[in-house]
Amino acid sequence: MKLSDFGERIAGDAGILRLMDDLGRALSGGKPTAMFGGGNPAHIPAVTHTYERQLRAIATDPVQLQAMLGNYDTPQGNDRFIRAIVQLLNDQFDWGITPDHVAVTPGSQSGFFMLFNLLAGTRHGIKRRIMLPIVPEYIGYADQLIEPACFMPIRPTIRKVGQHEFKYRLAAQSLSIDDSVAAIAFSRPTNPTGNAMTDEEVSRLAAMARQAGVPLIIDSAYGLPFPGVIHDAATPYYDDNTVISLSLSKIGLPSARVGIFVGPPPLMKALSSANAIVNLASPSIGQYIARELVASSDIMELATQHVQPFYAERAAHARQLFMDSLPPDLPWRFHIYEGSYFFWLWCDGAAKTATQLYDYLKKRGVIVVPGEFFFPGIDVSTWPHAQQCIRINFSRPDAELTAGARILADGVRWMYGNK
Amino acid sequence: MKLSDFGERIAGDAGILRLMDDLGRALSGGKPTAMFGGGNPAHIPAVTHTYERQLRAIATDPVQLQAMLGNYDTPQGNDRFIRAIVQLLNDQFDWGITPDHVAVTPGSQSGFFMLFNLLAGTRHGIKRRIMLPIVPEYIGYADQLIEPACFMPIRPTIRKVGQHEFKYRLAAQSLSIDDSVAAIAFSRPTNPTGNAMTDEEVSRLAAMARQAGVPLIIDSAYGLPFPGVIHDAATPYYDDNTVISLSLSKIGLPSARVGIFVGPPPLMKALSSANAIVNLASPSIGQYIARELVASSDIMELATQHVQPFYAERAAHARQLFMDSLPPDLPWRFHIYEGSYFFWLWCDGAAKTATQLYDYLKKRGVIVVPGEFFFPGIDVSTWPHAQQCIRINFSRPDAELTAGARILADGVRWMYGNK
Repeated sequence: MKLSDFGERIAGDAGILRLMDDLGRALSGGKPTAMFGGGNPAHIPAVTHTYERQLRAIATDPVQLQAMLGNYDTPQGNDRFIRAIVQLLNDQFDWGITPDHVAVTPGSQSGFFMLFNLLAGTRHGIKRRIMLPIVPEYIGYADQLIEPACFMPIRPTIRKVGQHEFKYRLAAQSLSIDDSVAAIAFSRPTNPTGNAMTDEEVSRLAAMARQAGVPLIIDSAYGLPFPGVIHDAATPYYDDNTVISLSLSKIGLPSARVGIFVGPPPLMKALSSANAIVNLASPSIGQYIARELVASSDIMELATQHVQPFYAERAAHARQLFMDSLPPDLPWRFHIYEGSYFFWLWCDGAAKTATQLYDYLKKRGVIVVPGEFFFPGIDVSTWPHAQQCIRINFSRPDAELTAGARILADGVRWMYGNK
Repeated sequence: MKLSDFGERIAGDAGILRLMDDLGRALSGGKPTAMFGGGNPAHIPAVTHTYERQLRAIATDPVQLQAMLGNYDTPQGNDRFIRAIVQLLNDQFDWGITPDHVAVTPGSQSGFFMLFNLLAGTRHGIKRRIMLPIVPEYIGYADQLIEPACFMPIRPTIRKVGQHEFKYRLAAQSLSIDDSVAAIAFSRPTNPTGNAMTDEEVSRLAAMARQAGVPLIIDSAYGLPFPGVIHDAATPYYDDNTVISLSLSKIGLPSARVGIFVGPPPLMKALSSANAIVNLASPSIGQYIARELVASSDIMELATQHVQPFYAERAAHARQLFMDSLPPDLPWRFHIYEGSYFFWLWCDGAAKTATQLYDYLKKRGVIVVPGEFFFPGIDVSTWPHAQQCIRINFSRPDAELTAGARILADGVRWMYGNK
């Protein structure tokens, strides 16, 4: 099998593949003791019931059903869904956007693939890159750039908090922008770390982006308006140079593959054009299921009444459990939890790597994601920190958390060579 | 807005964009007299009812519903759907395939984007191309290659049949294959022409591909096993060096975005890996709606009892109408109709171009697709034939066909300068 150079890169051993493989195997094959690995959102009965009602209402309305199943939407997305999104965002945040500010994609993963490659790569002989102002960043970005080495990752400052916590801060002194930057992008809250960049940090980056004439891209898959699993101190940011991405995945419809991008109309038009070429059109069914919930703002109630309390409770419970279970005398630290569905554990000064810990835990039935994959563009062998972290999906049932915490504690001890 | 060179190409004036824009506007805005432009499949009540039953059955089964909405499938696709496809293909054609031979993508458009770019482009310093052994070919391929100029289009021989028909034949004498070819690809039946490559032509290409060690890729979106809108003389071809693509779009589920690729396991694994990186996972809902129909072979009944008779009737009716309406004294020709949902009209020796005819017809409420976009890799200004064809979606209601045929006849007269 002779692949192109690009083909060999994307058919290779990408982090996202390991993540999806483990997830797939865990769900289909032998059940692990603790599935802390996946990005699958938790199943919340009230959420499922809401979508069930919508789906049944459509299934009993021949006109809607025919339209939902039998028509391609335009490459921009479903017209009524887009108008509902515009109304919701203007009602919630007073952003003053129009349908031309919106492009729907087959999931935000696909949207980022197109958006990043629309911007980054060679332009008129000059190679331009996506600045990631704080890494670690989302594992799914890592292999998405068609041209190699087009991420410009910035190492953050690490602020230690108490005995067992820390927070990443923008390394302001390392930041400078020039013609080789095509965009500044980050997730807020951040998958995998649970960090929410502060308002001050976001303002600084927004000013830099504007000055350089490049877009600021904020991946809000876990943020506001829905599911809104982010702490209150982080105010949503938007201006006419910003692209915000939202998703239906984290509010319970991952299988529908609906990503929503909001930004400057010319760029959103380019994204829709790319969508026509790459995908023809986005899947419609999720847009139909959600559109009345968005139009009526009921989706906000779903977020505030069901999704946010669920994750807040799980996060508090799991955090306490992990804090109590891990060996108090070792210098491990969790990132301060400010949002997302994940904890980020750093084994500061450990003798073994996160990948070794991953293997250790996997053999014992605990699936996590080793942190090495969350450092796009960084050679992790040059930065010990980048080999000492794992991502933990905390939104699991009590029994899994309890059993998993015990094994995780063993793993951490082993990682420091104390076992 | 500063895009990458790649970005400027895919955000530009692609043929597929015009097609989708016209389709979108026609369906949302003012209704045209005759919508011969789109690729939207016709709405067939028995087909809709079948999917409605499936959807309702899932919506009333909490376990299935939760699984359908709330879980990502693996990047390869939904396990049960894949097993159903394997069983159906082995039952129908005795191909002896396994689940490892299958990869599901978010529509076949997205699948071709990934598959073409996995194969074509620079490999170890050598640029390798996709041979299109007969152009015209599907408009959606045209802008999909990341590296420019990576199609190797072959002009067919034109065999005139009677007064007003013709057929493309493989130009056997122009065919040779070397290391610069990464794959041979064609649609069968062909969108836009309605041509079905003969068994002999396919065998010849299969032998060439095998000899060169590159895959033979057959886009069967309109072909067998479903919807099977192809004439009986075309036998389905498959061997261990072939990739076949199928789609749920042309059997009534275009909005679900489900493409199905069947081929050598290493290549299908590469395609699934690319899917993880580009899309994370494929949309699940269409796979759930269809999987029991595939497992029970009921989807074949849908194809043979409803879809095939519908298109056969529409094709016969529309063909007669067009043949009777167009000016008999002018040398226009339709491609022999052997499958797909389209007619391909060639105005041999016309004074004006197909794009001019498109504009003429559009002003009069008839939407077609100008043929220039269906010649990937060919400079149409060097080949008069490539500027003299239009694609017509014939599966329209009687009133549209009748009104449209009259205006089309005027357009053809105008194109020859006789008005």
